[in-house]
Parts: sequence; C-alpha cells; structure tokens
Amino acid sequence: MKIVIIGAGNVATHLAVAIKKSGQNILQIISKKIENSKKLAQKIGCDFADNISEINKNADLYIISVSDNQITKIASHKNLKNKFVVHTAGSISQEVLSNNSNKYGVFYPLQTFSKNVFVDFSQVPICIEANNTRNFQILENLAVKLGCESYAVNSEQRAKLHLSAVFVNNFTNYMFAVGNDILEKNNLPFEILRPLIRQTVAKIESTKPADVQTGPAIRGDTETIKKHLQQLSQMPDYKEIYELISNKISSDS
Amino acid sequence: MKIVIIGAGNVATHLAVAIKKSGQNILQIISKKIENSKKLAQKIGCDFADNISEINKNADLYIISVSDNQITKIASHKNLKNKFVVHTAGSISQEVLSNNSNKYGVFYPLQTFSKNVFVDFSQVPICIEANNTRNFQILENLAVKLGCESYAVNSEQRAKLHLSAVFVNNFTNYMFAVGNDILEKNNLPFEILRPLIRQTVAKIESTKPADVQTGPAIRGDTETIKKHLQQLSQMPDYKEIYELISNKISSDS
Repeated sequence: MKIVIIGAGNVATHLAVAIKKSGQNILQIISKKIENSKKLAQKIGCDFADNISEINKNADLYIISVSDNQITKIASHKNLKNKFVVHTAGSISQEVLSNNSNKYGVFYPLQTFSKNVFVDFSQVPICIEANNTRNFQILENLAVKLGCESYAVNSEQRAKLHLSAVFVNNFTNYMFAVGNDILEKNNLPFEILRPLIRQTVAKIESTKPADVQTGPAIRGDTETIKKHLQQLSQMPDYKEIYELISNKISSDS
Repeated sequence: MKIVIIGAGNVATHLAVAIKKSGQNILQIISKKIENSKKLAQKIGCDFADNISEINKNADLYIISVSDNQITKIASHKNLKNKFVVHTAGSISQEVLSNNSNKYGVFYPLQTFSKNVFVDFSQVPICIEANNTRNFQILENLAVKLGCESYAVNSEQRAKLHLSAVFVNNFTNYMFAVGNDILEKNNLPFEILRPLIRQTVAKIESTKPADVQTGPAIRGDTETIKKHLQQLSQMPDYKEIYELISNKISSDS
C-alpha cells in the first residue's frame, strides 16, 4: 500500500513510524514547516514537501494528520480530488472530507502522543469510519497490519470518545501535576506517590471506576475535607478544584 | 514482635495480612463490630475482641487503624497507658497519641485499599514518624520486614502527602468514572479507553506531569473546547468540571 502523510506533528510522527515498521510504502511526508517534514521523512526514508501542490499523486491513501482547523482546507485541495483521504482527528466529522472526494474515512488512534515519549503502537486502539464498506475494510486491514485493535466508530461516537479521553487523560494528568506541585512546594519527592498512582489504574483494570471510589468525599469525612481546604488556602486554584470535585463525588455517593 | 491491631477496615485488613505474612506475631484484632474482628482474626489466626477493655496487654506494638475521628478516643484508653501506640492515618498528627503514652508514632501506608482489590504490600511506601529515634527504628524495621520502602515524614508533611493523594488518586478515579459514564451513556465500551489510561500513567514514570500535558486546553484549541461543552449541555455537573479544569490548564500554559 502506497501512503502519503500530510502532517508531521506528534500523531503524524508516531503513526508514520508505525506504518513504516509494518512494511507499508510511505511515499512522502508533507508539512508546511519544511524542517518538520524533512526531519520525519529522513526518519522514514521517503520524499518530503512543504506544499500540497507538490503532492505525490500515486498514493493509495492520503492520511491528513494536522490541527483540527486545517483539515477541511487541506482536504479541499484540487490535488486530493477523488483521492482516498482520511483524517486522524477525534472531534472532526468524516463529512468534512466529502466535498472533494468519493473515497474518504477516519483513522483515529485513541492515544496520547508526546514528543520523545515511547508508545507501543500495537497497543493503540484505532477508531475507524469510512464512506463505504470497501474503504472501511482497507482501513481495517491497515490497522491489522499495525497490530492494532480496531473499532467501528461513527463520527458522533468518536466525538464522545474524544470528550471522555479529555477526562481520563488530560484532566487526570492535570491532577498528577497538582499533586506534584503540592509535593514540590513542601520538599517531598513525587516518587512517594508513584505506587499510589500505579494502583489507582490497576484497580480499574477489572472494576468500574465508580465502584472503587475512595477518599474523604465519598466517605463524607467533612473533618478531613476541612483540613485539606485549610491547607489549600494559599493555593486558591487548587482549592476551587478540590471543592468542586469533592462536591460532585459526595453528591454521587 | 508481638502486635495488636485495633481496627478491621480496609487498611487494617491489608496491613494485618502483610504483617502476618512477614512472620510477625499478631496477638489480637479488636474492632467494635465483632463480626469484622472475628473475620479478620480468623484470616490471620489470632484472638479477637470488640472492646479495648479486653485488649491483650502483652504486645510490643499497638496499631490503631480506624476512622480518623476515633483515633484520639481509642488512644486515650487506660489499657493503652504508656504502650507503644501508632496510628495509620494520613491527616492526623502524631501528637494526638502523646497524652496517654510516652512511646508513640505513625505508620502510614500511602496507598489506596479497597475490599477485594489485591495490593502488593511490598510496593506500598510507608511514611514513618515517631516520638524518638528508638521508636522510629522499630517502625522502620517493621517496614523492612514487610519489604516496603519507608520514608521519614513528619506530621505536617504527611498532611501534604495525604492532600496530594486525594488529587492523584481520588480525583483521578473520579475522572475515570466520568469518562466511563459518558461512554456507557453512548453504548461504547470502556475497554477502548484503557490503553490511553495506561499510557497516561506510563508517561509520567520518568517525566514531570506538567511537562506532558496534552489536550485542547493546553493547546488553546477553543473550537474543540466549545464542541465538548456543547456535548456536555445535558450533563451540567461534568460541564462545570470540564470548564473549571480547562481554565486552570489554560492559565498554566
């Protein structure tokens, strides 16, 4: 399968490396920042360009992996007319690809990608959508070649998944950042909290999160909550978060 | 070492099992709910009682592992006069034990314990405090026998640790619960999010959480945030959380 990747950010990079490793033929990387497309292309061993006007027209699949607000514009380019085009975004409908092509879909890897942080791509679930069964199967086969589980997910469901991902990943990471900040300000090493964090996740491997909620809020332990709020009196942002989430946990109990 | 454990809740149970396994001699379990003390005592193979008036006075160490608001009262009992008494609570000062004894300390296992969820106790960090060096060393030795890392942590630091633990464990678990709830309401399996959750934690094993923050809030992607808030219009509690945490993440960026 011959593939062109448009984009050279975190998702594009991790995806390109995984596709290359799976033995597919990446023809070209396109990124408007030429140094980024060059860097990724050198990693992959393929051509690169900084403009879609220079796109290689011989690919079987064009993967658009750029900022959400750039997708529609890129997909509308005359050089992608009736090409098989997919995007990789969580909260963009596949229909934004329908104006310029009769072959389109979504190939959304549901994972958090950061520069310099290793991801075992075979552990990434791929959410697939396509404008017809044949194209769906092509994308499903690509997921198989990458060693990934894939799921049929329509645009509406994908939007919900993306929303949930913000809670379980972005907001969770922020909770870790708050914990780390409180410890740093008190000269305590974050190491002490790591086993707790590992267990927090291990616990829900086989249990519904709501069933293993612990802590002062779910216990209705107002004394401890009062002490914690006092400790946060000099950290109004954290205090606000503490109060709001504790209230939500209490009202669920 | 001969030990009496007062309490038969989650912490007391996990701790008692680990102490027994390490080869220490647990003489007795005391819990005001006799069925709880009996159940744990049978697991351990020791005596039990439902009242401190029946406490075995021959122990070298008395571990009080009960609700925060019961600790002071229990520690003041005449049968514990000048016994070596410790509690296991995160946010209670060790000084509440000083009125009735000249040998006291804290043995705080920094972990989340739930009924029926396995914890490898050797991975639990123990935060230790004691009224003198000799007692500190006795508690440190006990931690070593349990195979645990231990840390010297005073009451003020322990309170900060406990506060941080609420963020990284309780609030994180709540974020998982919200994600799960949104998926359930849309007939999507929580399974799809598990690799993301695992990676969320794997990422911070060697990196500061604030340095790997991702998502629409840190990117300043107001379009996506707007879409997410629209999706949450029927879930006002989650919308409130989404808005608050996104604002905090944005203002840190």
